[in-house]
Amino acid sequence: MNAASLTLQAALGEVATDIDQRFDALLSIPDDPRADLYRAMRHAAIGGGKRLRPLLTMATAQLFGVDRDCAGRAGLAIECIHVYSLIHDDLPAMDDDDMRRGKPTAHKLFNEATAILAGDCLHALAFEILADTATHADPHVRVELILDLSRASGPNGMAGGQMMDLEAEKSSFDLPTVTRLQAMKTGALIACSVEAGAILGKVPPEQRTPLRGYARDLGLAFQIADDILDVEGDEAVAGKKLGKDAAAGKETFLSLLGLDRARGQARMLVDQAVEHLQGFGPEADLLRDIARFVMDRDR
Amino acid sequence: MNAASLTLQAALGEVATDIDQRFDALLSIPDDPRADLYRAMRHAAIGGGKRLRPLLTMATAQLFGVDRDCAGRAGLAIECIHVYSLIHDDLPAMDDDDMRRGKPTAHKLFNEATAILAGDCLHALAFEILADTATHADPHVRVELILDLSRASGPNGMAGGQMMDLEAEKSSFDLPTVTRLQAMKTGALIACSVEAGAILGKVPPEQRTPLRGYARDLGLAFQIADDILDVEGDEAVAGKKLGKDAAAGKETFLSLLGLDRARGQARMLVDQAVEHLQGFGPEADLLRDIARFVMDRDR
Repeated sequence: MNAASLTLQAALGEVATDIDQRFDALLSIPDDPRADLYRAMRHAAIGGGKRLRPLLTMATAQLFGVDRDCAGRAGLAIECIHVYSLIHDDLPAMDDDDMRRGKPTAHKLFNEATAILAGDCLHALAFEILADTATHADPHVRVELILDLSRASGPNGMAGGQMMDLEAEKSSFDLPTVTRLQAMKTGALIACSVEAGAILGKVPPEQRTPLRGYARDLGLAFQIADDILDVEGDEAVAGKKLGKDAAAGKETFLSLLGLDRARGQARMLVDQAVEHLQGFGPEADLLRDIARFVMDRDR
Repeated sequence: MNAASLTLQAALGEVATDIDQRFDALLSIPDDPRADLYRAMRHAAIGGGKRLRPLLTMATAQLFGVDRDCAGRAGLAIECIHVYSLIHDDLPAMDDDDMRRGKPTAHKLFNEATAILAGDCLHALAFEILADTATHADPHVRVELILDLSRASGPNGMAGGQMMDLEAEKSSFDLPTVTRLQAMKTGALIACSVEAGAILGKVPPEQRTPLRGYARDLGLAFQIADDILDVEGDEAVAGKKLGKDAAAGKETFLSLLGLDRARGQARMLVDQAVEHLQGFGPEADLLRDIARFVMDRDR
């Protein structure tokens, strides 16, 4: 393990602890009939996540000297959206998954109604967190974070991409359509995680082009790596069922490009993501390491 | 029909048209694999709703001379949350309803996955609408609207109340618990609809007490009237299945108080709601009429 990956491992560990603690504080179980709702949120939200999105927010925010607590709160809000999407995507009517992060999915451990509501509550909590003055004193910053996250998660972002993904089982999508699907389904929230760091840092939109290029390439590389993991990964390490895309007859980067070209494409995207950061010095090394990690991860 | 109810009928008609037009513009069907997602949102959102919540926002906003388009946008956002909650509450895992507003529910006409995602998308769109500068130029106002709506719809509001309602089938709730359940499940969003008008009007929080009292009493009266409708209403007029609470063995205001006392309680709450408005002149007549309408409606 070289120095860079040591730093990345430390950062991953720190963010994981930080986000777990924030979820723990956010989701104390009330002594009333909503207890299972909170238990389901805690089950899905605490422990086991890579926390890639909050890490991206915090790594980007630190480029601009943003207060760590503000960045952590924004990262928590984005992770709330990510966790809600996992809960809903795992439902029987959607991807019908029994395992997630090595644990039973929320609807298996509780029931479907509780899982649907747990997702809905995390969705609302994300915006409550961002709207709070503790996230940033300046309301312009808060409202810009909210606008960006609502767009990234709605019909033109994550949820729209999930709808396309459900249709992918019925149709035979071509490469541009699969690319658009993935840019929406996973790319939009990854892009939002980086953008949030820039918003907190009050970087004007016209100066965010390199970071946006980085996030776009990273998001695509992340998804290709995910497709490769789905075929080559170890279910015990991944903590979820694999091989699902092929079983569902869905076109993916892998099915359309083949393993070698898909891997080559992901490597190229990682290099490109790193190149976008050439205007930054060593302070952006963590972002560079994250890009390489996305390709080499095993879950 | 007297002059007051004529004005109310006109206002109800105007708001219904306005909200339908706004949903129509918001939800144009894209020419891509998300078409059914948009069709499902349109099906659930357009036509047939009472639009009580946007009407409350617009009626409150007009007390303070708020621009009508701003109030309409805020009302649309709140109605997005209301419609998303109807879609999710109707799901087989939740209340399992086949009919809503006289039409098949979204999951019946499309499928469960599309219905879940349509709800999730309307949820995100609500916050995107509020975060947009077109809703109000002042970011303080937008962020306060967002904070209020996220709280009213999350685990301490609507979604938390729905969780309590699911538990009500298993437990035998007493009157204070049923009151709290309903204050969360329907009361919070009704309160938020009035509060939004005051926020847009830049009324300082300490001067909102009468409006909050009005909204609290109105919300409770609305729910008691709903319980009465569930027992005494006409399914063809209501546009949904009735008699469900008794069939599910849930305690309601009606089961706990009996029909006569429940009706008396609702009338008293309507009177009380109107009394809260005594500091306002005839400009608050629409709010007064809404309170009376809530008791006399047939759907």
